[in-house]
Amino acid sequence: MRTALVQSLPVFGDEAANLASLTAAISSVEADFYVLPELCLSGYDFNDREEAASHALESTSETIEALARVATERGAGIAFGFAEKATEAGTAAFGNAAGDAPTRRIYNSALLAFPDGRRRVYRKTHLFARERLLFDPGDTGFFVEEFRGLRVGVAICFDWIFPESFRTLALKGADLIAHCSNLVMPYCQRVDYARAIENRVYVATANRVGTESRGSPEEGGARSLHFTGESVLVAPDGAYLLRLPPDRSDVGVCRVHPAKARNKALGDLNDLFADRRSEFYS
Amino acid sequence: MRTALVQSLPVFGDEAANLASLTAAISSVEADFYVLPELCLSGYDFNDREEAASHALESTSETIEALARVATERGAGIAFGFAEKATEAGTAAFGNAAGDAPTRRIYNSALLAFPDGRRRVYRKTHLFARERLLFDPGDTGFFVEEFRGLRVGVAICFDWIFPESFRTLALKGADLIAHCSNLVMPYCQRVDYARAIENRVYVATANRVGTESRGSPEEGGARSLHFTGESVLVAPDGAYLLRLPPDRSDVGVCRVHPAKARNKALGDLNDLFADRRSEFYS
Repeated sequence: MRTALVQSLPVFGDEAANLASLTAAISSVEADFYVLPELCLSGYDFNDREEAASHALESTSETIEALARVATERGAGIAFGFAEKATEAGTAAFGNAAGDAPTRRIYNSALLAFPDGRRRVYRKTHLFARERLLFDPGDTGFFVEEFRGLRVGVAICFDWIFPESFRTLALKGADLIAHCSNLVMPYCQRVDYARAIENRVYVATANRVGTESRGSPEEGGARSLHFTGESVLVAPDGAYLLRLPPDRSDVGVCRVHPAKARNKALGDLNDLFADRRSEFYS
Repeated sequence: MRTALVQSLPVFGDEAANLASLTAAISSVEADFYVLPELCLSGYDFNDREEAASHALESTSETIEALARVATERGAGIAFGFAEKATEAGTAAFGNAAGDAPTRRIYNSALLAFPDGRRRVYRKTHLFARERLLFDPGDTGFFVEEFRGLRVGVAICFDWIFPESFRTLALKGADLIAHCSNLVMPYCQRVDYARAIENRVYVATANRVGTESRGSPEEGGARSLHFTGESVLVAPDGAYLLRLPPDRSDVGVCRVHPAKARNKALGDLNDLFADRRSEFYS
Protein backbone atom coordinates (compact mmCIF):
# COMPACT_ATOMS: atom_id res chain seq x y z
CA MET A 1 0.00 0.00 0.00
CA ARG A 2 1.60 3.25 -1.16
CA THR A 3 0.52 6.04 1.16
CA ALA A 4 0.97 9.70 0.20
CA LEU A 5 1.18 12.74 2.45
CA VAL A 6 0.11 15.96 0.75
CA GLN A 7 1.54 19.06 2.45
CA SER A 8 -0.19 22.16 1.16
CA LEU A 9 -0.17 25.96 1.36
CA PRO A 10 -3.82 27.02 1.04
CA VAL A 11 -4.96 30.46 -0.04
CA PHE A 12 -7.30 31.63 2.70
CA GLY A 13 -10.89 31.50 1.60
CA ASP A 14 -10.16 30.57 -2.03
CA GLU A 15 -11.84 27.22 -2.41
CA ALA A 16 -11.32 27.03 -6.18
CA ALA A 17 -7.60 27.78 -6.00
CA ASN A 18 -7.12 25.28 -3.18
CA LEU A 19 -9.06 22.57 -4.97
CA ALA A 20 -6.87 23.15 -8.04
CA SER A 21 -3.56 23.00 -6.15
CA LEU A 22 -4.62 19.92 -4.13
CA THR A 23 -5.75 18.23 -7.34
CA ALA A 24 -2.37 18.92 -8.89
CA ALA A 25 -0.54 17.62 -5.80
CA ILE A 26 -2.57 14.39 -5.69
CA SER A 27 -2.11 13.86 -9.40
CA SER A 28 1.64 14.33 -9.15
CA VAL A 29 2.26 10.97 -7.43
CA GLU A 30 0.93 7.43 -7.64
CA ALA A 31 -0.47 6.14 -4.38
CA ASP A 32 -3.18 3.88 -2.96
CA PHE A 33 -4.15 6.25 -0.19
CA TYR A 34 -3.72 10.02 0.18
CA VAL A 35 -3.73 11.99 3.43
CA LEU A 36 -4.28 15.76 3.21
CA PRO A 37 -4.24 18.51 5.85
CA GLU A 38 -7.06 19.81 8.04
CA LEU A 39 -9.36 22.50 6.55
CA CYS A 40 -7.42 22.22 3.32
CA LEU A 41 -10.04 23.81 1.05
CA SER A 42 -10.76 26.90 3.14
CA GLY A 43 -7.70 27.82 5.20
CA TYR A 44 -7.72 27.79 8.97
CA ASP A 45 -8.14 30.95 11.01
CA PHE A 46 -11.68 32.22 10.59
CA ASN A 47 -12.50 35.49 12.35
CA ASP A 48 -15.72 34.20 13.80
CA ARG A 49 -18.33 31.51 13.54
CA GLU A 50 -20.12 33.42 10.83
CA GLU A 51 -17.05 33.50 8.63
CA ALA A 52 -16.45 29.79 9.32
CA ALA A 53 -20.03 29.09 8.28
CA SER A 54 -19.62 31.09 5.09
CA HIS A 55 -16.72 28.82 4.03
CA ALA A 56 -18.25 25.59 5.33
CA LEU A 57 -19.55 22.96 2.91
CA GLU A 58 -21.97 20.10 3.24
CA SER A 59 -20.16 16.78 3.19
CA THR A 60 -22.12 15.79 0.09
CA SER A 61 -21.45 19.06 -1.72
CA GLU A 62 -19.99 19.20 -5.19
CA THR A 63 -16.62 20.59 -4.12
CA ILE A 64 -16.11 17.96 -1.44
CA GLU A 65 -17.04 15.23 -3.88
CA ALA A 66 -14.77 16.75 -6.53
CA LEU A 67 -11.73 16.55 -4.23
CA ALA A 68 -12.62 13.00 -3.15
CA ARG A 69 -12.89 11.95 -6.78
CA VAL A 70 -9.40 13.13 -7.67
CA ALA A 71 -8.23 10.15 -5.62
CA THR A 72 -11.10 7.70 -6.02
CA GLU A 73 -11.13 7.98 -9.81
CA ARG A 74 -7.50 6.88 -9.70
CA GLY A 75 -8.58 3.87 -7.63
CA ALA A 76 -7.19 5.35 -4.40
CA GLY A 77 -8.59 6.26 -1.00
CA ILE A 78 -8.29 9.73 0.52
CA ALA A 79 -8.73 11.58 3.81
CA PHE A 80 -8.91 15.38 3.88
CA GLY A 81 -10.09 18.06 6.28
CA PHE A 82 -12.84 20.58 5.56
CA ALA A 83 -15.19 22.96 7.35
CA GLU A 84 -18.49 21.11 7.43
CA LYS A 85 -21.92 22.69 7.42
CA ALA A 86 -24.57 20.33 8.73
CA THR A 87 -28.23 21.09 9.20
CA GLU A 88 -29.67 18.87 11.86
CA ALA A 89 -33.39 18.40 11.98
CA GLY A 90 -34.76 19.70 15.28
CA THR A 91 -34.74 16.67 17.51
CA ALA A 92 -34.33 16.08 21.21
CA ALA A 93 -30.97 14.46 20.44
CA PHE A 94 -29.55 17.90 19.72
CA GLY A 95 -31.12 19.54 22.72
CA ASN A 96 -34.13 20.76 20.79
CA ALA A 97 -37.68 19.61 21.16
CA ALA A 98 -38.81 17.56 18.17
CA GLY A 99 -40.33 19.87 15.63
CA ASP A 100 -38.12 22.84 16.54
CA ALA A 101 -36.44 24.72 13.74
CA PRO A 102 -33.42 22.92 12.24
CA THR A 103 -30.10 23.72 13.89
CA ARG A 104 -27.09 24.71 11.82
CA ARG A 105 -23.91 23.01 12.99
CA ILE A 106 -20.38 23.82 11.86
CA TYR A 107 -17.78 21.11 12.35
CA ASN A 108 -14.06 20.82 11.79
CA SER A 109 -14.35 17.57 9.83
CA ALA A 110 -12.49 15.14 7.63
CA LEU A 111 -13.89 13.08 4.78
CA LEU A 112 -12.69 9.52 4.30
CA ALA A 113 -13.48 8.39 0.75
CA PHE A 114 -12.85 5.18 -1.20
CA PRO A 115 -13.25 4.14 -4.86
CA ASP A 116 -16.17 1.83 -4.02
CA GLY A 117 -18.25 4.88 -3.15
CA ARG A 118 -17.90 4.74 0.61
CA ARG A 119 -17.86 8.20 2.20
CA ARG A 120 -17.52 8.72 5.92
CA VAL A 121 -17.18 11.95 7.90
CA TYR A 122 -15.14 12.30 11.07
CA ARG A 123 -15.86 15.40 13.16
CA LYS A 124 -12.92 16.61 15.26
CA THR A 125 -13.32 15.43 18.83
CA HIS A 126 -10.89 17.86 20.51
CA LEU A 127 -11.10 21.47 19.35
CA PHE A 128 -7.97 23.62 19.72
CA ALA A 129 -7.87 27.22 20.93
CA ARG A 130 -10.13 29.56 18.89
CA GLU A 131 -11.66 26.58 17.09
CA ARG A 132 -13.79 26.36 20.21
CA LEU A 133 -15.40 29.66 19.23
CA LEU A 134 -15.89 28.64 15.60
CA PHE A 135 -16.92 25.00 15.50
CA ASP A 136 -19.23 22.59 17.27
CA PRO A 137 -17.47 19.77 19.10
CA GLY A 138 -17.37 16.62 17.01
CA ASP A 139 -20.09 14.05 17.63
CA THR A 140 -18.98 11.14 15.44
CA GLY A 141 -16.32 9.62 17.68
CA PHE A 142 -13.48 7.58 16.21
CA PHE A 143 -14.00 4.87 13.60
CA VAL A 144 -12.04 2.61 11.29
CA GLU A 145 -12.69 1.66 7.68
CA GLU A 146 -10.90 -1.05 5.72
CA PHE A 147 -9.56 -0.49 2.22
CA ARG A 148 -7.60 -3.18 0.34
CA GLY A 149 -6.54 -4.83 3.57
CA LEU A 150 -5.50 -1.57 5.26
CA ARG A 151 -7.65 -0.44 8.18
CA VAL A 152 -7.68 3.33 8.25
CA GLY A 153 -8.70 5.52 11.20
CA VAL A 154 -9.05 9.28 11.03
CA ALA A 155 -8.01 11.97 13.51
CA ILE A 156 -7.68 15.73 13.15
CA CYS A 157 -4.77 17.81 14.45
CA PHE A 158 -5.17 18.53 18.22
CA ASP A 159 -6.62 15.05 18.75
CA TRP A 160 -2.93 13.97 18.83
CA ILE A 161 -2.24 15.39 22.30
CA PHE A 162 -4.83 13.13 23.90
CA PRO A 163 -3.28 9.64 23.88
CA GLU A 164 -6.79 8.24 24.08
CA SER A 165 -7.53 9.38 20.50
CA PHE A 166 -4.97 7.23 18.69
CA ARG A 167 -5.33 4.50 21.33
CA THR A 168 -9.03 4.27 20.64
CA LEU A 169 -8.41 4.07 16.90
CA ALA A 170 -5.76 1.39 17.40
CA LEU A 171 -8.00 -0.64 19.70
CA LYS A 172 -10.73 -0.39 17.06
CA GLY A 173 -8.29 -2.01 14.65
CA ALA A 174 -6.62 0.87 12.79
CA ASP A 175 -3.39 -0.04 11.01
CA LEU A 176 -2.83 3.54 9.87
CA ILE A 177 -4.07 6.77 11.40
CA ALA A 178 -4.77 9.43 8.78
CA HIS A 179 -4.05 12.55 10.82
CA CYS A 180 -5.23 15.66 8.93
CA SER A 181 -3.46 18.60 10.59
CA ASN A 182 -2.83 22.34 10.69
CA LEU A 183 -0.13 22.30 13.37
CA VAL A 184 1.06 25.52 15.02
CA MET A 185 2.73 24.04 18.12
CA PRO A 186 6.15 22.35 17.88
CA TYR A 187 5.32 19.05 19.59
CA CYS A 188 3.26 16.71 17.44
CA GLN A 189 5.79 15.52 14.87
CA ARG A 190 7.99 14.36 17.76
CA VAL A 191 5.15 12.86 19.81
CA ASP A 192 4.07 10.83 16.77
CA TYR A 193 7.04 8.60 17.57
CA ALA A 194 5.37 7.62 20.85
CA ARG A 195 1.94 7.27 19.23
CA ALA A 196 3.37 4.82 16.68
CA ILE A 197 5.41 2.83 19.22
CA GLU A 198 2.73 2.55 21.91
CA ASN A 199 0.01 1.46 19.48
CA ARG A 200 2.15 -0.31 16.89
CA VAL A 201 0.43 1.57 14.09
CA TYR A 202 1.41 3.81 11.19
CA VAL A 203 0.87 7.47 11.98
CA ALA A 204 0.40 9.69 8.91
CA THR A 205 0.38 13.36 9.90
CA ALA A 206 -0.35 15.57 6.86
CA ASN A 207 0.36 19.17 7.86
CA ARG A 208 0.21 22.51 6.06
CA VAL A 209 2.81 25.26 5.77
CA GLY A 210 2.71 29.04 5.58
CA THR A 211 1.43 31.87 7.73
CA GLU A 212 -2.10 33.22 8.04
CA SER A 213 -2.39 36.85 9.14
CA ARG A 214 -5.99 37.62 9.88
CA GLY A 215 -8.37 39.82 11.84
CA SER A 216 -8.83 43.50 12.37
CA PRO A 217 -9.48 44.75 15.91
CA GLU A 218 -13.19 44.42 15.04
CA GLU A 219 -12.69 40.87 13.77
CA GLY A 220 -11.39 39.23 16.90
CA GLY A 221 -8.07 41.08 16.89
CA ALA A 222 -5.08 40.92 14.55
CA ARG A 223 -3.66 37.42 14.60
CA SER A 224 -0.84 35.63 12.85
CA LEU A 225 -0.46 31.87 12.83
CA HIS A 226 2.53 30.02 11.44
CA PHE A 227 2.06 26.39 10.42
CA THR A 228 5.00 24.06 10.91
CA GLY A 229 4.98 21.71 7.92
CA GLU A 230 7.24 18.69 8.44
CA SER A 231 4.47 16.25 7.68
CA VAL A 232 5.60 12.83 8.89
CA LEU A 233 4.74 9.21 8.37
CA VAL A 234 5.96 7.06 11.24
CA ALA A 235 6.07 3.25 11.16
CA PRO A 236 4.94 0.96 14.00
CA ASP A 237 8.59 0.58 15.06
CA GLY A 238 9.10 4.33 15.31
CA ALA A 239 10.95 4.75 12.01
CA TYR A 240 10.17 8.04 10.25
CA LEU A 241 9.41 6.84 6.71
CA LEU A 242 8.60 10.35 5.51
CA ARG A 243 9.42 13.83 6.76
CA LEU A 244 8.51 16.71 4.45
CA PRO A 245 10.16 20.16 4.59
CA PRO A 246 9.04 22.77 7.15
CA ASP A 247 8.39 25.60 4.73
CA ARG A 248 6.98 24.57 1.36
CA SER A 249 4.27 22.51 -0.28
CA ASP A 250 5.35 18.97 -1.01
CA VAL A 251 4.13 15.43 -1.51
CA GLY A 252 5.77 12.27 -0.16
CA VAL A 253 4.95 8.63 -0.76
CA CYS A 254 6.02 5.48 1.04
CA ARG A 255 4.82 1.91 1.44
CA VAL A 256 2.95 0.73 4.51
CA HIS A 257 2.37 -2.90 5.45
CA PRO A 258 -0.84 -3.69 7.33
CA ALA A 259 0.69 -6.89 8.74
CA LYS A 260 3.33 -4.86 10.59
CA ALA A 261 0.65 -2.84 12.32
CA ARG A 262 -1.50 -5.91 12.97
CA ASN A 263 1.25 -7.60 14.99
CA LYS A 264 1.15 -6.26 18.56
CA ALA A 265 3.67 -8.78 19.89
CA LEU A 266 6.82 -7.49 21.53
CA GLY A 267 9.20 -10.43 21.80
CA ASP A 268 7.82 -13.86 22.67
CA LEU A 269 6.11 -12.98 25.93
CA ASN A 270 4.38 -9.63 25.45
CA ASP A 271 1.49 -8.36 23.37
CA LEU A 272 0.83 -4.65 23.68
CA PHE A 273 -2.93 -5.02 23.54
CA ALA A 274 -3.43 -8.33 25.37
CA ASP A 275 -1.17 -7.10 28.18
CA ARG A 276 -3.27 -4.03 28.93
CA ARG A 277 -4.71 -4.15 32.44
CA SER A 278 -7.65 -1.83 32.12
CA GLU A 279 -8.89 -2.60 35.63
CA PHE A 280 -6.04 -0.37 36.83
CA TYR A 281 -6.62 2.52 34.38
CA SER A 282 -8.48 5.74 35.16
CA MET B 1 12.01 20.68 45.11
CA ARG B 2 15.39 19.27 44.09
CA THR B 3 14.87 15.88 42.46
CA ALA B 4 17.75 13.45 41.97
CA LEU B 5 18.08 10.60 39.49
CA VAL B 6 20.44 7.86 40.63
CA GLN B 7 21.78 5.78 37.74
CA SER B 8 23.46 2.66 39.06
CA LEU B 9 25.45 -0.40 38.00
CA PRO B 10 24.37 -3.17 40.35
CA VAL B 11 26.43 -6.29 41.06
CA PHE B 12 24.08 -9.18 40.34
CA GLY B 13 22.90 -10.81 43.54
CA ASP B 14 25.14 -8.79 45.88
CA GLU B 15 22.65 -6.94 48.04
CA ALA B 16 25.30 -5.60 50.44
CA ALA B 17 27.51 -4.19 47.69
CA ASN B 18 24.52 -2.61 45.96
CA LEU B 19 23.21 -1.10 49.17
CA ALA B 20 26.64 0.41 49.76
CA SER B 21 26.99 1.91 46.29
CA LEU B 22 23.43 3.27 46.28
CA THR B 23 24.02 4.77 49.72
CA ALA B 24 27.15 6.47 48.43
CA ALA B 25 25.33 7.76 45.36
CA ILE B 26 22.43 9.18 47.36
CA SER B 27 24.80 10.77 49.86
CA SER B 28 26.82 12.40 47.09
CA VAL B 29 24.14 15.00 46.28
CA GLU B 30 21.63 17.13 48.15
CA ALA B 31 18.05 16.59 47.04
CA ASP B 32 14.49 16.53 48.35
CA PHE B 33 13.50 13.44 46.43
CA TYR B 34 15.56 10.60 44.98
CA VAL B 35 14.52 8.23 42.19
CA LEU B 36 16.49 4.99 41.82
CA PRO B 37 16.28 2.19 39.23
CA GLU B 38 14.14 -0.94 39.22
CA LEU B 39 15.44 -4.00 41.14
CA CYS B 40 18.40 -1.90 42.25
CA LEU B 41 19.44 -4.08 45.20
CA SER B 42 19.41 -7.44 43.45
CA GLY B 43 20.13 -6.99 39.76
CA TYR B 44 17.63 -7.91 37.07
CA ASP B 45 17.83 -11.12 35.12
CA PHE B 46 17.01 -14.01 37.45
CA ASN B 47 17.25 -17.47 35.95
CA ASP B 48 13.94 -18.59 37.34
CA ARG B 49 11.26 -17.83 39.88
CA GLU B 50 13.19 -19.70 42.56
CA GLU B 51 16.25 -17.53 42.09
CA ALA B 52 14.06 -14.40 42.10
CA ALA B 53 12.52 -15.58 45.35
CA SER B 54 15.94 -16.16 46.89
CA HIS B 55 16.85 -12.49 46.27
CA ALA B 56 13.44 -11.08 47.13
CA LEU B 57 12.89 -9.12 50.34
CA GLU B 58 9.84 -8.27 52.37
CA SER B 59 8.95 -4.61 52.03
CA THR B 60 9.44 -4.17 55.77
CA SER B 61 12.80 -5.96 55.85
CA GLU B 62 15.90 -4.39 57.32
CA THR B 63 17.68 -3.91 54.00
CA ILE B 64 14.71 -2.18 52.39
CA GLU B 65 14.33 0.07 55.41
CA ALA B 66 18.09 0.76 55.44
CA LEU B 67 17.99 2.02 51.84
CA ALA B 68 14.87 4.10 52.51
CA ARG B 69 16.54 5.68 55.53
CA VAL B 70 19.54 6.88 53.58
CA ALA B 71 17.15 9.40 52.06
CA THR B 72 14.60 9.86 54.82
CA GLU B 73 17.21 10.56 57.49
CA ARG B 74 18.38 13.40 55.28
CA GLY B 75 14.81 14.69 55.24
CA ALA B 76 14.21 13.50 51.68
CA GLY B 77 11.78 11.17 49.95
CA ILE B 78 12.86 8.22 47.82
CA ALA B 79 11.50 5.70 45.32
CA PHE B 80 13.46 2.57 44.46
CA GLY B 81 12.78 -0.80 42.90
CA PHE B 82 13.26 -4.16 44.61
CA ALA B 83 12.21 -7.79 44.30
CA GLU B 84 9.44 -8.16 46.86
CA LYS B 85 8.58 -11.32 48.72
CA ALA B 86 5.04 -11.22 50.12
CA THR B 87 3.30 -13.96 52.00
CA GLU B 88 -0.42 -13.63 51.59
CA ALA B 89 -2.69 -15.32 54.05
CA GLY B 90 -4.87 -17.86 52.27
CA THR B 91 -8.01 -15.93 51.48
CA ALA B 92 -10.56 -16.05 48.76
CA ALA B 93 -9.23 -12.69 47.58
CA PHE B 94 -6.14 -14.45 46.29
CA GLY B 95 -8.01 -17.28 44.71
CA ASN B 96 -7.60 -19.55 47.71
CA ALA B 97 -10.33 -20.71 50.00
CA ALA B 98 -10.07 -19.02 53.41
CA GLY B 99 -7.90 -21.15 55.63
CA ASP B 100 -5.72 -22.47 52.78
CA ALA B 101 -1.97 -22.46 53.24
CA PRO B 102 -0.41 -19.00 52.77
CA THR B 103 0.70 -18.21 49.22
CA ARG B 104 4.13 -16.84 48.52
CA ARG B 105 4.07 -14.03 46.00
CA ILE B 106 7.07 -12.45 44.28
CA TYR B 107 6.56 -8.97 42.87
CA ASN B 108 8.66 -6.55 40.89
CA SER B 109 8.01 -3.65 43.28
CA ALA B 110 9.04 -0.15 44.22
CA LEU B 111 9.05 1.41 47.65
CA LEU B 112 8.00 5.02 48.07
CA ALA B 113 9.30 6.34 51.41
CA PHE B 114 9.10 9.72 53.15
CA PRO B 115 10.73 11.22 56.26
CA ASP B 116 7.41 11.23 58.15
CA GLY B 117 7.49 7.44 58.16
CA ARG B 118 5.10 6.84 55.28
CA ARG B 119 6.02 3.73 53.28
CA ARG B 120 4.02 2.59 50.28
CA VAL B 121 4.70 -0.26 47.88
CA TYR B 122 3.85 -0.18 44.18
CA ARG B 123 3.84 -3.56 42.41
CA LYS B 124 4.63 -3.40 38.69
CA THR B 125 1.44 -3.55 36.67
CA HIS B 126 2.91 -4.54 33.29
CA LEU B 127 5.58 -7.26 33.39
CA PHE B 128 8.12 -7.33 30.56
CA ALA B 129 9.38 -10.43 28.75
CA ARG B 130 10.87 -13.05 31.14
CA GLU B 131 9.61 -11.10 34.15
CA ARG B 132 6.34 -12.85 33.38
CA LEU B 133 8.00 -16.13 34.34
CA LEU B 134 9.57 -14.71 37.51
CA PHE B 135 7.08 -12.35 39.13
CA ASP B 136 3.41 -12.15 39.96
CA PRO B 137 1.53 -9.37 38.17
CA GLY B 138 1.21 -6.30 40.36
CA ASP B 139 -2.00 -5.91 42.31
CA THR B 140 -1.62 -2.45 43.85
CA GLY B 141 -2.57 -0.31 40.87
CA PHE B 142 -1.31 3.24 40.53
CA PHE B 143 -1.36 5.74 43.39
CA VAL B 144 -0.09 9.19 44.29
CA GLU B 145 1.41 10.46 47.55
CA GLU B 146 2.12 14.08 48.42
CA PHE B 147 5.40 15.23 49.91
CA ARG B 148 6.15 18.91 50.59
CA GLY B 149 3.64 20.02 48.01
CA LEU B 150 4.87 17.60 45.32
CA ARG B 151 2.49 14.82 44.37
CA VAL B 152 4.54 11.77 43.45
CA GLY B 153 3.30 8.75 41.49
CA VAL B 154 5.32 5.59 40.93
CA ALA B 155 5.71 3.44 37.82
CA ILE B 156 8.20 0.72 36.96
CA CYS B 157 9.98 0.35 33.62
CA PHE B 158 7.71 -1.36 31.01
CA ASP B 159 4.68 0.49 32.43
CA TRP B 160 5.92 3.36 30.20
CA ILE B 161 4.78 1.77 26.93
CA PHE B 162 1.15 1.76 28.03
CA PRO B 163 0.02 5.39 27.86
CA GLU B 164 -2.68 4.51 30.37
CA SER B 165 -0.08 4.08 33.14
CA PHE B 166 1.21 7.64 33.27
CA ARG B 167 -2.21 8.96 32.27
CA THR B 168 -3.77 7.25 35.26
CA LEU B 169 -1.12 8.67 37.57
CA ALA B 170 -1.58 12.15 36.13
CA LEU B 171 -5.37 11.96 36.43
CA LYS B 172 -4.88 10.90 40.05
CA GLY B 173 -2.95 14.12 40.55
CA ALA B 174 0.72 13.20 40.09
CA ASP B 175 3.03 16.16 39.45
CA LEU B 176 6.05 13.90 39.05
CA ILE B 177 6.22 10.28 37.99
CA ALA B 178 9.05 8.40 39.67
CA HIS B 179 9.81 5.82 37.01
CA CYS B 180 12.17 3.16 38.36
CA SER B 181 13.63 1.39 35.33
CA ASN B 182 15.97 -1.26 33.94
CA LEU B 183 15.57 -0.39 30.25
CA VAL B 184 16.87 -2.69 27.54
CA MET B 185 14.87 -1.34 24.57
CA PRO B 186 15.83 1.95 22.89
CA TYR B 187 12.45 3.71 23.03
CA CYS B 188 11.52 4.95 26.46
CA GLN B 189 13.82 7.92 26.93
CA ARG B 190 12.41 9.35 23.71
CA VAL B 191 8.78 8.49 24.46
CA ASP B 192 9.09 10.24 27.85
CA TYR B 193 8.84 13.48 25.85
CA ALA B 194 5.30 12.53 24.85
CA ARG B 195 4.41 11.30 28.34
CA ALA B 196 5.45 14.66 29.81
CA ILE B 197 3.72 16.77 27.14
CA GLU B 198 0.44 14.85 27.02
CA ASN B 199 0.03 14.80 30.81
CA ARG B 200 1.84 18.02 31.69
CA VAL B 201 3.86 16.25 34.39
CA TYR B 202 7.50 15.72 35.25
CA VAL B 203 8.74 12.30 34.17
CA ALA B 204 11.76 11.02 36.13
CA THR B 205 13.13 7.85 34.55
CA ALA B 206 15.98 6.42 36.66
CA ASN B 207 17.67 3.72 34.62
CA ARG B 208 20.65 1.41 35.21
CA VAL B 209 23.70 0.74 33.05
CA GLY B 210 25.87 -2.29 32.33
CA THR B 211 25.38 -5.77 30.97
CA GLU B 212 24.12 -8.88 32.74
CA SER B 213 25.27 -12.20 31.26
CA ARG B 214 23.37 -15.00 32.92
CA GLY B 215 22.10 -18.53 32.57
CA SER B 216 23.55 -21.87 31.59
CA PRO B 217 21.56 -24.07 29.21
CA GLU B 218 20.04 -25.66 32.34
CA GLU B 219 19.21 -22.26 33.77
CA GLY B 220 16.92 -20.98 31.07
CA GLY B 221 19.64 -20.59 28.43
CA ALA B 222 22.60 -18.24 28.17
CA ARG B 223 21.34 -14.68 28.06
CA SER B 224 22.94 -11.27 27.90
CA LEU B 225 21.07 -8.05 28.57
CA HIS B 226 22.47 -4.60 28.04
CA PHE B 227 20.90 -1.72 29.95
CA THR B 228 20.77 1.64 28.21
CA GLY B 229 21.41 4.24 30.94
CA GLU B 230 20.55 7.77 29.80
CA SER B 231 18.28 8.36 32.77
CA VAL B 232 16.16 11.42 31.97
CA LEU B 233 14.05 13.94 33.79
CA VAL B 234 11.58 15.64 31.45
CA ALA B 235 9.58 18.75 32.35
CA PRO B 236 5.87 19.26 31.61
CA ASP B 237 6.83 21.35 28.56
CA GLY B 238 9.01 18.57 27.14
CA ALA B 239 12.37 20.06 28.19
CA TYR B 240 14.96 17.44 29.15
CA LEU B 241 16.22 18.83 32.47
CA LEU B 242 18.55 15.87 33.01
CA ARG B 243 20.07 13.25 30.74
CA LEU B 244 22.72 11.01 32.30
CA PRO B 245 25.39 9.16 30.29
CA PRO B 246 24.58 5.84 28.56
CA ASP B 247 27.42 3.80 30.04
CA ARG B 248 28.33 4.65 33.62
CA SER B 249 26.88 5.20 37.07
CA ASP B 250 25.95 8.79 37.73
CA VAL B 251 23.68 11.05 39.75
CA GLY B 252 21.88 14.14 38.46
CA VAL B 253 19.84 16.75 40.31
CA CYS B 254 17.44 19.40 39.06
CA ARG B 255 14.59 21.48 40.43
CA VAL B 256 10.96 20.63 39.76
CA HIS B 257 8.04 22.98 40.36
CA PRO B 258 4.72 21.37 41.29
CA ALA B 259 2.80 24.42 40.06
CA LYS B 260 4.06 23.83 36.52
CA ALA B 261 2.68 20.30 36.55
CA ARG B 262 -0.54 21.39 38.24
CA ASN B 263 -1.40 23.78 35.38
CA LYS B 264 -3.06 21.78 32.61
CA ALA B 265 -4.04 24.88 30.62
CA LEU B 266 -2.78 25.20 27.06
CA GLY B 267 -3.37 28.80 26.04
CA ASP B 268 -6.57 30.55 27.13
CA LEU B 269 -9.09 28.12 25.72
CA ASN B 270 -7.79 24.61 26.39
CA ASP B 271 -7.21 22.49 29.46
CA LEU B 272 -5.69 19.09 28.78
CA PHE B 273 -7.72 17.34 31.43
CA ALA B 274 -11.00 19.25 31.26
CA ASP B 275 -11.01 18.85 27.46
CA ARG B 276 -10.89 15.06 27.55
CA ARG B 277 -14.01 13.53 26.02
CA SER B 278 -13.99 10.12 27.62
CA GLU B 279 -17.35 9.18 26.11
CA PHE B 280 -15.45 8.71 22.84
CA TYR B 281 -12.53 6.67 24.27
CA SER B 282 -12.19 2.90 24.20
